[in-house]
Amino acid sequence: MSVQTIATSAPPSRTGVSYSLRKPYLLFIGDAPSAGHAKTAFGIRDWAPDTVLAQWRLPGCRTDLELPEMDAATAAANGAASLVIGIAPAGGRIPAHWIDCLVAAADAGLDIVAGLHSRLNDNPELVAAARRNGIALIDVREPPKGIAVATGDKRPGKRLLTVGSDCALGKKYTALSLAKAMRQAGIDADFRATGQTGILIAGQGLPMDAVVVDFAAGAAEALSPDAAPDHWDIIEGQGSLIHPAYAGVTLALIHGSQPDALVLCHEAGRAHINDQPAIRIPPLDQLAEMYLQAARLTNPGVRLVGASLNTSRLDEGASERALDEAEDLLQVPSFDPLRTSPDAIISKLQAP
Amino acid sequence: MSVQTIATSAPPSRTGVSYSLRKPYLLFIGDAPSAGHAKTAFGIRDWAPDTVLAQWRLPGCRTDLELPEMDAATAAANGAASLVIGIAPAGGRIPAHWIDCLVAAADAGLDIVAGLHSRLNDNPELVAAARRNGIALIDVREPPKGIAVATGDKRPGKRLLTVGSDCALGKKYTALSLAKAMRQAGIDADFRATGQTGILIAGQGLPMDAVVVDFAAGAAEALSPDAAPDHWDIIEGQGSLIHPAYAGVTLALIHGSQPDALVLCHEAGRAHINDQPAIRIPPLDQLAEMYLQAARLTNPGVRLVGASLNTSRLDEGASERALDEAEDLLQVPSFDPLRTSPDAIISKLQAP
Repeated sequence: MSVQTIATSAPPSRTGVSYSLRKPYLLFIGDAPSAGHAKTAFGIRDWAPDTVLAQWRLPGCRTDLELPEMDAATAAANGAASLVIGIAPAGGRIPAHWIDCLVAAADAGLDIVAGLHSRLNDNPELVAAARRNGIALIDVREPPKGIAVATGDKRPGKRLLTVGSDCALGKKYTALSLAKAMRQAGIDADFRATGQTGILIAGQGLPMDAVVVDFAAGAAEALSPDAAPDHWDIIEGQGSLIHPAYAGVTLALIHGSQPDALVLCHEAGRAHINDQPAIRIPPLDQLAEMYLQAARLTNPGVRLVGASLNTSRLDEGASERALDEAEDLLQVPSFDPLRTSPDAIISKLQAP
Repeated sequence: MSVQTIATSAPPSRTGVSYSLRKPYLLFIGDAPSAGHAKTAFGIRDWAPDTVLAQWRLPGCRTDLELPEMDAATAAANGAASLVIGIAPAGGRIPAHWIDCLVAAADAGLDIVAGLHSRLNDNPELVAAARRNGIALIDVREPPKGIAVATGDKRPGKRLLTVGSDCALGKKYTALSLAKAMRQAGIDADFRATGQTGILIAGQGLPMDAVVVDFAAGAAEALSPDAAPDHWDIIEGQGSLIHPAYAGVTLALIHGSQPDALVLCHEAGRAHINDQPAIRIPPLDQLAEMYLQAARLTNPGVRLVGASLNTSRLDEGASERALDEAEDLLQVPSFDPLRTSPDAIISKLQAP
């Protein structure tokens, strides 16, 4: 995927309330003890390789993005515009020995971008360095200011939303995969990020889960603004309508997105909500109907156009069988974004 | 209704995250140009009369709560513990000539409580007066700190939630009326406020709509904590599942409240969501089924136990006919909280 594949063709937002990051990135992975700790960096590298100029590792780093190695000054001299923290620090706090690196990045003129719980803008040293150098500290977990209450007014342009049976099973990668394939097929499509990793990959978006609940549907409206009639926004879903903590986010995102099309995401074999054995995932056709009912409120013409299965725990034969079963049950094409092509879904999307 | 009727018997909250206001109140209505501007004050007087010691009016005030007239010093000398701003200022800002009154209240040792968009804690003069006198400035529109993500774990005690076909049609007064009648019938019941007016009336609660969406269901869990098996929390509903801006609040409140019982609230004759003519209100039996389906996620035993109709635009005969029609359609008792008794609903609630 090239940076152009996921960069947006539309202006950042009708209302100017979503983030827009400067590219290319220097990916900071510090002294990551394992690849798992740097999964944000790997996600950015894999889904937006042309966004990434180099990696910056510190002594003791135990993983490797297989990118050119640069420090802040070298990256800046080679055209980098932002340092992106691609690692989750232990305990959530930014360690003291990282701060020197981040100050050096600010001194080299790079914006500093992070999606951490611990905010860059709460660190006095970083705030001083940013002010001194005229660079931005961007905490993509913080919602931008200026989000309004949803109007419910129908917007021009077309929208696809990924929805799921649970959290953390592939709604983001499903949307990224669809947006990439659509652009490769010559369709005018943008990926719209709703969580911090998606925002770092796309270079723009809005962290839905951090918005005050009264404004959550309004945030979704701002995220996919008015567009040309044939333009598609491919929107990253959040949570699940059957998740006892996060269904409010999911419903607000559905109503504000006004989707024309839904793709239902599920992990093959997952029987209940993670850590909630009492909440069983219903048959996928029932779940799809719940989502369609909710989405009809702001777009009565909404359709289910596909299923996305995370089959990472299955061998190839079992994966194919699971995909076939989902197609039989839902009567729409299915795919696994990390294994198979979404082309059949895209064909269905374009069929009247 | 006495203050005991709506005061809570349970501690403020399991997690300590809901407000608890000091009573009794001096109701400040300033120079209110009409009764409509002071509707918060009238609501407190009507639903929590024993909470209210006196009113404080300024020259030019054009309405009257028919309470003893006192200024801050006199009210404090007579036992008042908090000054509550019971009027919405024009333009949302606290006028300069009110600040002198509020500083005098702080100097008299009263807490100052408001549910305004303009925050008390943003005014340097008030902050200084509060610090000087050791009193609290309480903005009940701001959610308290320390709200956690919902667990979904079932809590002991019983809960009733009012749900509605739209905003602003009687969910708060329905809950207040039910809680009052239940306590009069000797049932251990507490009203649980979810909006600023309800919080001022009850002296505690949590402003659901101001919580970050990821924590909204968790806020609802904190609002109605573990209780005795026969204790009822009567929870003020918010928004509507069919409101394009606020359904996320509604769903989070449903999931976090884990209601055993729902009362469906509707304004007789309202055909569509206010200001949203395209969103028609479905037949009430369909709407009730939507709510029951959503509530079953965290409480499979949930029942519809009643309907509450706002019939304020109807004459008595038409009101009775509307209530009868709702009973026939929904097969549960109905009432109008400002006209008729909820006793039939309470009987149904106690039936197995």
